[in-house]
Amino acid sequence: MLENGIKQELAAVVGSSFLKDDKQTLVAHSYDGTPMLQALPDAVIYPGSTQEVAAIMKILNRHRIPLVSRGSGTNLCGGTVPVLGGVVMVMHRMNAILEVDMQNLTATVQPGIITKKFIEHVESLGLFYPPDPSSMSISTIGGNIAECSGGLRGLKYGTTKDYVLGLECVLASGEIIRTGGKLVKDVAGYDLTKLLIGSEGTLAIVTEATLKLVPPPKYKKTMLAMFSDLYDAARTVSKIIENRIIPATLEFMDNPTIRVVDDYAKLGLPLDMAAILLIEQDGDTETVERDIERISGICRDENATQISIAHTQEEALKLLTARRSAFTALARLRPTTILEDATVPRSKIADMVLEINRIAQKHDVTICTFGHAGDGNLHPTATTDARDQEEIHRVEAAFEEIFEAAIALGGTITGEHGVGLVKAPFLEWKVGSAGVEIMKNIKLAFDPLSLLNPGKMFAKQSRRRVVLERG
Amino acid sequence: MLENGIKQELAAVVGSSFLKDDKQTLVAHSYDGTPMLQALPDAVIYPGSTQEVAAIMKILNRHRIPLVSRGSGTNLCGGTVPVLGGVVMVMHRMNAILEVDMQNLTATVQPGIITKKFIEHVESLGLFYPPDPSSMSISTIGGNIAECSGGLRGLKYGTTKDYVLGLECVLASGEIIRTGGKLVKDVAGYDLTKLLIGSEGTLAIVTEATLKLVPPPKYKKTMLAMFSDLYDAARTVSKIIENRIIPATLEFMDNPTIRVVDDYAKLGLPLDMAAILLIEQDGDTETVERDIERISGICRDENATQISIAHTQEEALKLLTARRSAFTALARLRPTTILEDATVPRSKIADMVLEINRIAQKHDVTICTFGHAGDGNLHPTATTDARDQEEIHRVEAAFEEIFEAAIALGGTITGEHGVGLVKAPFLEWKVGSAGVEIMKNIKLAFDPLSLLNPGKMFAKQSRRRVVLERG
Repeated sequence: MLENGIKQELAAVVGSSFLKDDKQTLVAHSYDGTPMLQALPDAVIYPGSTQEVAAIMKILNRHRIPLVSRGSGTNLCGGTVPVLGGVVMVMHRMNAILEVDMQNLTATVQPGIITKKFIEHVESLGLFYPPDPSSMSISTIGGNIAECSGGLRGLKYGTTKDYVLGLECVLASGEIIRTGGKLVKDVAGYDLTKLLIGSEGTLAIVTEATLKLVPPPKYKKTMLAMFSDLYDAARTVSKIIENRIIPATLEFMDNPTIRVVDDYAKLGLPLDMAAILLIEQDGDTETVERDIERISGICRDENATQISIAHTQEEALKLLTARRSAFTALARLRPTTILEDATVPRSKIADMVLEINRIAQKHDVTICTFGHAGDGNLHPTATTDARDQEEIHRVEAAFEEIFEAAIALGGTITGEHGVGLVKAPFLEWKVGSAGVEIMKNIKLAFDPLSLLNPGKMFAKQSRRRVVLERG
Repeated sequence: MLENGIKQELAAVVGSSFLKDDKQTLVAHSYDGTPMLQALPDAVIYPGSTQEVAAIMKILNRHRIPLVSRGSGTNLCGGTVPVLGGVVMVMHRMNAILEVDMQNLTATVQPGIITKKFIEHVESLGLFYPPDPSSMSISTIGGNIAECSGGLRGLKYGTTKDYVLGLECVLASGEIIRTGGKLVKDVAGYDLTKLLIGSEGTLAIVTEATLKLVPPPKYKKTMLAMFSDLYDAARTVSKIIENRIIPATLEFMDNPTIRVVDDYAKLGLPLDMAAILLIEQDGDTETVERDIERISGICRDENATQISIAHTQEEALKLLTARRSAFTALARLRPTTILEDATVPRSKIADMVLEINRIAQKHDVTICTFGHAGDGNLHPTATTDARDQEEIHRVEAAFEEIFEAAIALGGTITGEHGVGLVKAPFLEWKVGSAGVEIMKNIKLAFDPLSLLNPGKMFAKQSRRRVVLERG
């Protein structure tokens, strides 16, 4: 619980209706999109402006109270669970689109804007903001920046970091800094903008972002290719890119995922296939038609059993639904769904999928795999039950081996979900002890009292636990 | 001078022929591409491997001797002048292309490889590395990474930072770290890769880089548009992008630059034009043809007096030569050429050029302006004489006002040349005192003894001097 004096100070900044510490609000902000993690905050605060955020941070800094800033909490790494208590700052009131600059093709927004709402707004103006995380209909731009969110269009268009040109942030001290600007090029000092993206709220609180917009593609075409052999599908991914074609989307689903998705969405998918690739190309009409034709040829050469090309927007939407509904469909199977994020060089997709299947079998757990094959970014997803301690331990052991396998293949422990609580014990595997040391020093360079989202990114020790206990 | 004991330690690492401290070698490494800056190092060392770099750093760290790592020293910010003496480390022996991975479309190189040589190598394999700084025929990839070099293709393709996927670096402690990898997506901890790019050798010594390659464009078309009114030309830049066309190249030259270039390269340019735009589009044939036609239409609508479209590769090369030879041509005019790097949002190009002309006139100095108009990145270039103290002070005063004007227009003090020595006094103007403080803390997070390229990036105080005295 916060002392009454501190509560009064905070309420004086935001107004008493925007500071809450009733049980219901605290519980609602004790967890996020990650299963099996929970910790109660001491209060929840809803700032309305950058100045309020700065004033709040000055108070918390003086009293050395931790702060967790968050948007919708859709992250899958325990990134917004307030493990050390303190104040949770919800950015939803700061949700304005401050400007769309049609001359410079930029937009300036507050962090609380819902990603999909922002995307629809810029599309209505004839522009395009590519990052499209699966959570986009509820996640916020601020959250996307904190986690450097990816999405289905990452292969061709990149991820959130490729679209943030400038930031306004509040430091742990309460000072306000501005980085970058409406500038395509800026090398004045270290690139704080890029450093802050994906820093999971541990370095500063983002209060405004200037985003790059691009001309929208004129035309789009969607296709599915089905494979009776997993290895054929994975090799096709490499072959497409080796042939110098970069599709907008190049997604993968394995057989268990196909079965679950079809049962959920009734799409009439062939249930005996080992894998499906969902491929989308966009751009100028001639380019798209030619690329889709060439991709079809490559799929056939690599033994695709069946190829479906969407001829209408409805057909395309149906094919996309197959992939977009994967997580939802899997989540229906059992009480607990753990969606992971191992990423490898794209040439290693086949090896990685085989490793995942071998490891799942070894530990007798159900793991369905889908993901952004073109990025080498797979989402092995365990359907399990948090109440079954013994099974959960087997799931943990399996994921630990999956991360090890990803690293061994030249990959990483997380491609787009972030480190947060869940991956903190494994960070050293990827970046080494000298790398962790440097990152801890950077954390202290911004936040010497470790007030911002404490307990995240860095494990107290290199534990070998994937799933943490209920806090 | 280094103590004999230390010299022996260093020579034991690299072999005595790769450690030099004769006068000639010291003088040759006392300056770089930046005029009027010079400081003698105590020794010059040429490592042959990452292990040697690590061993050297351990020795220097123990004796607290500064180190400046460098490639060809073509930078224009005094970035490799050893202002505090110590050892200059030349990376030219570490110049191997270690691998081109055709499946993942990556290349792994040592830092000493000449950029143009690398570009030609990947082009011979049917791939494309877009960053093309004007210095590319002599500069190195390591130097490009240190300065986050841009180039003529930046508008569409981005700069060096957009093509570095992973780094191997030696820290000031002599420890070796690896960041990123052959991964399109990696959010395991803070983005050290991007932080190191453009850090000007102040955080770590890059010993290996994994670079992203892309499919080459199939077709390319080049055109010049000439304008009798400067403002028409500048507005055309905005109009092209407002019309959702992102050309590969969109370069600008003002009248003084046109005259000098034509005198140098005998291209038959119209000498009465206020400005010329050089525009290049690449991609699929249909797209390029259509874009060039639309761009021509926009140029005509904005009162272009003359439009030349290249119909052969020779013609295209001739048009490109006009822009590529700008610096060389200007450098012939007077003994000292100071090329600056003010950058503004692209919609402010016209305002910025007018400001530059006003300021040049006010201080009675000759400033020709050319640059990457599509990026808002202008190179106002003063032709002057370092021996004339009075004139140099007027040039300094003019550039100071030019930086002020860029910042006032929402711009930055440097778009692609870096801070180094020359811009250090102005860094605070762009990032604020809290920003400078954070950056200094980051520097110490990597390099607590300030051994790596000391004296760069951060000014001892916020001086208002642009051109520094001979050291």
